[in-house]
Amino acid sequence: MRLIETNLFREIHEQDVVIGRFLNDAAPAVEKLVAAMRSQGVDHVVIAARGTSDNAARYAQYVLGAFNGLQVALATPSLFSLYDRPITFGNALVLGISQSGQSPDIVSVLAAAQAQGKLTAAITNNPTSPLAQQADHVIALQTGDEKAVAATKTYTTSLAAIALLSATLANDDARLAELHTVPAAITQTLTLNDTIGTLAPRYRYMQHCVVIGRGFNYATAFEMALKMKELSYSIVEPYSSADFLHGPFAILNEGFPVFIIAPNGQLTDELATFAAQVGARSAETIVISDVAALLDAATIPLKLSASLPEWLSPFTTIVAGQLFAMHLADVRGFDVDAPRAIRKVTETN
Amino acid sequence: MRLIETNLFREIHEQDVVIGRFLNDAAPAVEKLVAAMRSQGVDHVVIAARGTSDNAARYAQYVLGAFNGLQVALATPSLFSLYDRPITFGNALVLGISQSGQSPDIVSVLAAAQAQGKLTAAITNNPTSPLAQQADHVIALQTGDEKAVAATKTYTTSLAAIALLSATLANDDARLAELHTVPAAITQTLTLNDTIGTLAPRYRYMQHCVVIGRGFNYATAFEMALKMKELSYSIVEPYSSADFLHGPFAILNEGFPVFIIAPNGQLTDELATFAAQVGARSAETIVISDVAALLDAATIPLKLSASLPEWLSPFTTIVAGQLFAMHLADVRGFDVDAPRAIRKVTETN
Repeated sequence: MRLIETNLFREIHEQDVVIGRFLNDAAPAVEKLVAAMRSQGVDHVVIAARGTSDNAARYAQYVLGAFNGLQVALATPSLFSLYDRPITFGNALVLGISQSGQSPDIVSVLAAAQAQGKLTAAITNNPTSPLAQQADHVIALQTGDEKAVAATKTYTTSLAAIALLSATLANDDARLAELHTVPAAITQTLTLNDTIGTLAPRYRYMQHCVVIGRGFNYATAFEMALKMKELSYSIVEPYSSADFLHGPFAILNEGFPVFIIAPNGQLTDELATFAAQVGARSAETIVISDVAALLDAATIPLKLSASLPEWLSPFTTIVAGQLFAMHLADVRGFDVDAPRAIRKVTETN
Repeated sequence: MRLIETNLFREIHEQDVVIGRFLNDAAPAVEKLVAAMRSQGVDHVVIAARGTSDNAARYAQYVLGAFNGLQVALATPSLFSLYDRPITFGNALVLGISQSGQSPDIVSVLAAAQAQGKLTAAITNNPTSPLAQQADHVIALQTGDEKAVAATKTYTTSLAAIALLSATLANDDARLAELHTVPAAITQTLTLNDTIGTLAPRYRYMQHCVVIGRGFNYATAFEMALKMKELSYSIVEPYSSADFLHGPFAILNEGFPVFIIAPNGQLTDELATFAAQVGARSAETIVISDVAALLDAATIPLKLSASLPEWLSPFTTIVAGQLFAMHLADVRGFDVDAPRAIRKVTETN
């Protein structure tokens, strides 16, 4: 099958439309959740999620932290599902994120929270799923069926749900307006498809690499790494630039590929310094950015064709990452719709 | 230099003595912290840490969750240090863990918490460090100088600090007594040194692998992976068995090395199923366990020579992991005391 005819290709390329629809439809559900958070005086958030959805949760840590002052904890589902030692939640919103809404361990976290009378919510593409049924509030992603095994549009729409929640909770009309520019920026980013298709063969025989992101794009590093693993079977490790310097930096050698997610923002200087440190080890830096200085210093610059405020940049940076993972898998002759050994719905305990 | 004369070898082998000393000396400081947690009605915990200390924080997530019902969040230091958007903490204990107590980003989290009047504590090997000065309560590890760049005794002693905090907070004399059996179990585990030294050459040319752990030993998977990266420069990715099934499972191929941390406990069945799934992909399973059935099914069984209650098993499983990482580096001819490109104290913003 030609790449352009695959579900993955189509689903990556419809993300602008899907997110536009979500932003038009989801406000009422989000406003109801915000009202409940206010009336219950929620002072922190606990998120239960796995895989791609866990990366959306990482985005929530930064967005809800930076703009709403909320500490976000990632739940440890096995305490609920395997150890039967549920947490006693404080004044928390307990939020489940799951495309399918099926995984028993995620559902068990919300069940425990509900039994304790805590506020619960679900972000899911399946509003009749067990997860949705367990939640007081459901934010439906409405992306339509996601047929490729690797999640793409459900990931970015989950980011949209989190961004919408944050801006609504902060009553921040300026940020809401910024959020509505995301679909057009994605449309523009998708024009990178051919550039990335031309670049991918260079990495045909790459066995392993690391992906670096920090702050709002810490999530992007994890999600790009996951897509590359799922689709191209490379060994890919995501890191914050700070964590990478605490030990793992030792693995670098000449030509070691280091992908750096570095859109314009608060971290530009930090990541420029980091890229220079990596370059000094003769590693290969592949920089996804809209900052000329960073692109100029890269072994391989990958220039973003649209710029967004930093807090929204994970929408465009991950589109570049998805395209790269897809083309890399394609260049390797792999089935991008159905990676070996994994399925769309993974039920774990 | 002969391996036996290195700082790393000595520091790994003195962990029993060091932890014994810590457990004898640290109770008063921990009791004061517990009294403060009770009087302030702390209902969740936020931990700021990086590298090895972050893995100790992962242990805290399970121990304080399972036995004290406390949700533990890992802080996002960049919100404090780079974005200048500190979290508004709820009723949290904000805990910094750092061997050196030097990293500005970790210190900045505690500074913000203290400015908000929240309860703060530090677990550190340097009780006069900036981190210690920023904390209301200091639990000093007292391991003596750690000279090897890769942290070993400060990691396990940080685990001891967390275990002691948990048992003291729960007023649980039975668990306190169990904790005091740890030094002897480590002494016994250290007898694996020769076995592991004999095994290591098999992995001389291994380029990458994954390390799987879950529950209490999720931390062990991360810490063993980090030691292998720091010391042997392999690409090593840690996973919970559940997360690994959500996507990354696709990377497995014939002979792919999968280290599985599986001491006896609540997760034995889960991990047996997981090991069988991995085996069905013709991957190589290296199982660190004291469970005969799991060891029998492994490609390479690594039998723990001491058994501890599951919540304490991370003390012995990581000793096996440290020994493996050290011998692997030695077999590769690397300097185990001073890995390339990294230093003992990493100051990140």
